[in-house]
Amino acid sequence: MNKLFKEHLVVAQNASGRNMNVPLYRFVGVKPGPKVYIQSSIHGAEVQGNVVIYQLIQWLKTLPICGEVLLVPNCNPVGTNIKAGEYTLGRFDPVNGTNWNRGYYYDDAFIHEFAQSIDDEESIQSIKSRFRLKMKQQLQTRLSETWGIGLAQHLNLKLQQLAFDADYVLDLHNGPVSTRHIYVPEYAKVSASLFNIPHVIFMPNVFSGALDEATFCPWWLLTDLVSSKRKVPVDFEVEAFTLEMGSQEVISFKDGEYDAKSILTYLTAKGCLPGSSILPENMSRKAVTLNHYKTLFTQQGGIVEYIAKPGDLVKKDQVLARVLNVDNLDTDRATTDILAPCDLVAILHFPSASVLSGTQLYKCFTEYFEL
Amino acid sequence: MNKLFKEHLVVAQNASGRNMNVPLYRFVGVKPGPKVYIQSSIHGAEVQGNVVIYQLIQWLKTLPICGEVLLVPNCNPVGTNIKAGEYTLGRFDPVNGTNWNRGYYYDDAFIHEFAQSIDDEESIQSIKSRFRLKMKQQLQTRLSETWGIGLAQHLNLKLQQLAFDADYVLDLHNGPVSTRHIYVPEYAKVSASLFNIPHVIFMPNVFSGALDEATFCPWWLLTDLVSSKRKVPVDFEVEAFTLEMGSQEVISFKDGEYDAKSILTYLTAKGCLPGSSILPENMSRKAVTLNHYKTLFTQQGGIVEYIAKPGDLVKKDQVLARVLNVDNLDTDRATTDILAPCDLVAILHFPSASVLSGTQLYKCFTEYFEL
Amino acid sequence: MNKLFKEHLVVAQNASGRNMNVPLYRFVGVKPGPKVYIQSSIHGAEVQGNVVIYQLIQWLKTLPICGEVLLVPNCNPVGTNIKAGEYTLGRFDPVNGTNWNRGYYYDDAFIHEFAQSIDDEESIQSIKSRFRLKMKQQLQTRLSETWGIGLAQHLNLKLQQLAFDADYVLDLHNGPVSTRHIYVPEYAKVSASLFNIPHVIFMPNVFSGALDEATFCPWWLLTDLVSSKRKVPVDFEVEAFTLEMGSQEVISFKDGEYDAKSILTYLTAKGCLPGSSILPENMSRKAVTLNHYKTLFTQQGGIVEYIAKPGDLVKKDQVLARVLNVDNLDTDRATTDILAPCDLVAILHFPSASVLSGTQLYKCFTEYFEL
Amino acid sequence: MNKLFKEHLVVAQNASGRNMNVPLYRFVGVKPGPKVYIQSSIHGAEVQGNVVIYQLIQWLKTLPICGEVLLVPNCNPVGTNIKAGEYTLGRFDPVNGTNWNRGYYYDDAFIHEFAQSIDDEESIQSIKSRFRLKMKQQLQTRLSETWGIGLAQHLNLKLQQLAFDADYVLDLHNGPVSTRHIYVPEYAKVSASLFNIPHVIFMPNVFSGALDEATFCPWWLLTDLVSSKRKVPVDFEVEAFTLEMGSQEVISFKDGEYDAKSILTYLTAKGCLPGSSILPENMSRKAVTLNHYKTLFTQQGGIVEYIAKPGDLVKKDQVLARVLNVDNLDTDRATTDILAPCDLVAILHFPSASVLSGTQLYKCFTEYFEL
Repeated sequence: MNKLFKEHLVVAQNASGRNMNVPLYRFVGVKPGPKVYIQSSIHGAEVQGNVVIYQLIQWLKTLPICGEVLLVPNCNPVGTNIKAGEYTLGRFDPVNGTNWNRGYYYDDAFIHEFAQSIDDEESIQSIKSRFRLKMKQQLQTRLSETWGIGLAQHLNLKLQQLAFDADYVLDLHNGPVSTRHIYVPEYAKVSASLFNIPHVIFMPNVFSGALDEATFCPWWLLTDLVSSKRKVPVDFEVEAFTLEMGSQEVISFKDGEYDAKSILTYLTAKGCLPGSSILPENMSRKAVTLNHYKTLFTQQGGIVEYIAKPGDLVKKDQVLARVLNVDNLDTDRATTDILAPCDLVAILHFPSASVLSGTQLYKCFTEYFEL
Repeated sequence: MNKLFKEHLVVAQNASGRNMNVPLYRFVGVKPGPKVYIQSSIHGAEVQGNVVIYQLIQWLKTLPICGEVLLVPNCNPVGTNIKAGEYTLGRFDPVNGTNWNRGYYYDDAFIHEFAQSIDDEESIQSIKSRFRLKMKQQLQTRLSETWGIGLAQHLNLKLQQLAFDADYVLDLHNGPVSTRHIYVPEYAKVSASLFNIPHVIFMPNVFSGALDEATFCPWWLLTDLVSSKRKVPVDFEVEAFTLEMGSQEVISFKDGEYDAKSILTYLTAKGCLPGSSILPENMSRKAVTLNHYKTLFTQQGGIVEYIAKPGDLVKKDQVLARVLNVDNLDTDRATTDILAPCDLVAILHFPSASVLSGTQLYKCFTEYFEL
Repeated sequence: MNKLFKEHLVVAQNASGRNMNVPLYRFVGVKPGPKVYIQSSIHGAEVQGNVVIYQLIQWLKTLPICGEVLLVPNCNPVGTNIKAGEYTLGRFDPVNGTNWNRGYYYDDAFIHEFAQSIDDEESIQSIKSRFRLKMKQQLQTRLSETWGIGLAQHLNLKLQQLAFDADYVLDLHNGPVSTRHIYVPEYAKVSASLFNIPHVIFMPNVFSGALDEATFCPWWLLTDLVSSKRKVPVDFEVEAFTLEMGSQEVISFKDGEYDAKSILTYLTAKGCLPGSSILPENMSRKAVTLNHYKTLFTQQGGIVEYIAKPGDLVKKDQVLARVLNVDNLDTDRATTDILAPCDLVAILHFPSASVLSGTQLYKCFTEYFEL
Repeated sequence: MNKLFKEHLVVAQNASGRNMNVPLYRFVGVKPGPKVYIQSSIHGAEVQGNVVIYQLIQWLKTLPICGEVLLVPNCNPVGTNIKAGEYTLGRFDPVNGTNWNRGYYYDDAFIHEFAQSIDDEESIQSIKSRFRLKMKQQLQTRLSETWGIGLAQHLNLKLQQLAFDADYVLDLHNGPVSTRHIYVPEYAKVSASLFNIPHVIFMPNVFSGALDEATFCPWWLLTDLVSSKRKVPVDFEVEAFTLEMGSQEVISFKDGEYDAKSILTYLTAKGCLPGSSILPENMSRKAVTLNHYKTLFTQQGGIVEYIAKPGDLVKKDQVLARVLNVDNLDTDRATTDILAPCDLVAILHFPSASVLSGTQLYKCFTEYFEL
């Protein structure tokens, strides 16, 4: 049966001078096979992924794997524990505003340079091993910088050291008030239908600092460079996704079972679970390319009722939200309706009724299509 | 028809040196009658009351009143505008932690002294007028203190100057994640059934700083002193309530209609709305005395699923909540169930899944009875 | 020589489900003697006391004591680690605004009841032992409450269990921007001159929730009750102080040496350090009774230059502070001077230039006298 | 004499639905001349610049100018008013962590395109006018985006609309605990000595989102493109600087006079003040290129004494700071010294003694030279 190795990784030290660490659950199968890396809660208030990992662990106690599955719940012990009022201020470092999911490493030039070192005979397996080794040296160099590095970046690089070993990387997040959705690199389009997730965003090969990008961008670029050099398409069979498992600040053990099964479905398809025959659900999956995943900002401040719920299809000019203005309760300017600028699917909305102007009210699929 | 007078009351100045003010909507009826005072959002994240006042205003444009109704939405312009992450840090002054609803004025000794000044012949009406006048002088003295007073207390006293003129005072709040409930002074028990609110807490004559108490405690004590002196029960016909209109951080215009109608029902019964014949709904109303309204604190930290929903009846030893511990996901200590210590009604729960030990997880009715 | 016992006390659990603990350094002397309890940083941003305890530990390695000295640095692992921007939000629980230094236990009725149990023959030593035992049972009962207790109160009671054993209790704090000062119960007036601290506040027998009060109020009341019953003054020789070691958010190892020596001076006088002959410095010590320790609140918001520095003597109508108003930079209302309402010593001021109206600008000694 | 025009610019709306605005003080001289733009407090806790503008206004009442000087104090009414504890959380939007000084507009491609539109005959003056017009159209397009834009970016673009008209742009900031320093684009090196500021950072033509860069980068690139095309150097005579006027959270009217005079010295040299003959002070000015302006991050968490003060010259391996670890007060690991990695000038340090690992402890000049 699988073996479970459990350890803790120190990723920071708090103001009491004490280590802050992250639990690692590593399942190793009897047979060789791909490596899987799944982390949750890099944003401290996005906690459903921890439940998903809990449910995965229950399965993996009895379900044989090929290769290795590394599960890293609650991977940001700082972000999880910063309260501001009753809620968790988990999206960014409270000291300087740094988003906890923007400090992973990616260097275009390094990959170009590495590609130079590949001769035409080198096997895919050898390239993968060498690339991982070099990449992890890069990470170690940054972690060992004489002048030090920032807290968020340090955390990110420590996690990336683990994640870059994996063939399949899943980063579990939540939206504010949100329906389930998934970010999928365009080259792995086919995999979008292996999850039971109804909304899909296809990502280009552009790095903005997140873990999924920090995983798929290097392999994507390397694939392009080697394919172009060898004049045949090569495939490193590495994929990375960000899964948004509903809303932040809530957990559900029942939903976690469903979410875990969705991940097992993907892993089954990828050959990680030899004894499993779980198939993806037959369901509607709507998709957009990233440039059509739009943010609607408020033009005004006030108190908002979110009329369109996450997952709702909204036609152009239908009411998305209604804003109350307390200074005009007796006039017809008491309320203002915010209308859909075009046909859209509401994916998520802001979690508080009170908004300043310039608030991200909704994120929406526009120009979406069925998978 | 009613006349509407609209003005703004300056209650603070911000760090830009600018006035922060509160909108006042004063409806004055053609005929004399009682005065009503309704405020909302003294806690900045508790915003549904603003919608309720909006809906009341729509009614009062056409519904004749006797006397006067003063509506004060969004009565805390500081608390409404303090964001900490996406949520509103509205319960306390972010500078010093002072709860925005604990700085109203009450002084036992002053009331005893005032009671001395009443002779046996003085009419109830005359006593009420003189008491209000003296009380407002007390408030003004505190507001004019040479050394100044704190921000929250200043705001409270400015509002209390308006509220103490009223016969019926309603302070509109929300719980964290909460069912609708109302705080009612024991002497006004009968009024509990005039609102369409399913959960009622009966309050003793004890002052802890809130507006409802700052209204009913003085009149209650004065009633007792005068009644005891005259050896007949006197009645000043002043009542005050805190209404908790569901959960913070959300508004609903539809629910606001229902909430507004509930208030109109009360005002109808009190003779403020001569043309109205709205009657309270025939519904179950569960009540407790304040000492049986219990707070359940967590003994441990972790990530919580709130299994009992606000309004749920829970039997002793049934599961209220389940806590996940990320360091033990592979053992039977992965989850811990928090059980009901006795039969109870869950009224509200904490709004975040992430809790430290010592968090107010639930507030519950125990030893409750049907009204 | 003294023995040092070092352990950790669990006082909370964080949202990761991990224990948060407090270090305890217990020095036990060869000879019996009084017990001393010193804690620091119950307010997380007030950190100089940790340095003072560090310096005390260096001394106590070589300086023999009678009895026992228990040192508890960084006694609030939650408050120390809550950042909001670059600063530490250490004065209150960020979830609910509860001041970390207001949840200690005191119950008038319990002490009256205990006093009844004392017969005229019982020795002071026996009364002390029994009182401590009973008191700690009271604390344990509160800590074991079925419905649980709040985080701050739990922390306070765990510390109070340790502190109530001691004869001399020192709680080390800092002001915002502050000169050194000390709170001394009136019955221990003589001890004020045993510290090298230039500003002294004499406290009445009134409990507001702080550790010093939670220590001296019970003994003070018990002293009064027993003295009155026996018709001779009894003395339990218990004293408690809050020491404000300058400003929050900064530490100085050099100042810490001075502060530590000041404490050793007190302990020498109390017979805890048989080999020591350190005498208090010959210095000016100004004192007030608590009712003359005044807070000056701003009437306006704006940007402030603090002209009077902590420790400065200011005459009535001299300028304490100058406020800039950005909307009037071209007029003579650009700046407003805040004047001293009477002769005073500025003890501390607000630590930020940006203030809303109703901010605690200065705390001042008025009607002060030389010790 | 100069005319003063005073108005307010609406830049946001708060959750009460009320406009938040910025004061504009526009001095227009009798004679034509360059335009000057000076703003302060885009970071809400960095308030000394408001005093500097106040002092400049006092001068400009009597000192004739050529052209126009636009002064915009307190230019971020949101950031100024977000308190988190006693301090101002002014560096980033509390909702999402966005730095208030990173949302200005710059688009390389737009400038290349504009450069194409310049023929060889067009005068510098005409190019400047057309470029400003086009640039402001670009800004307006972004401000009018159907889906809206974020709060910080909206604020930035509204200010940039004003600033881009100017020839000389000064953005007044403060460091955390900091000596005075200035950021100067390399092409304007000569101007570094026109201010009385002892520390100078020379900036390359790289845009990272700040106002100074958003001003000098477009003109710099345009200069390069036109010069290269015309094969003679052209000069648009536009300069932009970020001035760091000491430490955040404090103001000094006296220092503000000095700072204002330093700015007048620069404006005198630039021909804005015909009647003035103020000359820069003869003083030491140390400079670095941006790549040698280094940030030292802590490797550990703890409580820190900042031994090197802002402005101090520190030799390699000298002690910069000492960190206390509360769990080891009795061992030789009680304190750890942080040493200078090389010879350096300490420019600023973190403003709190309590730090997590990965905190920006110091920013330092290395490889510095005398101007």
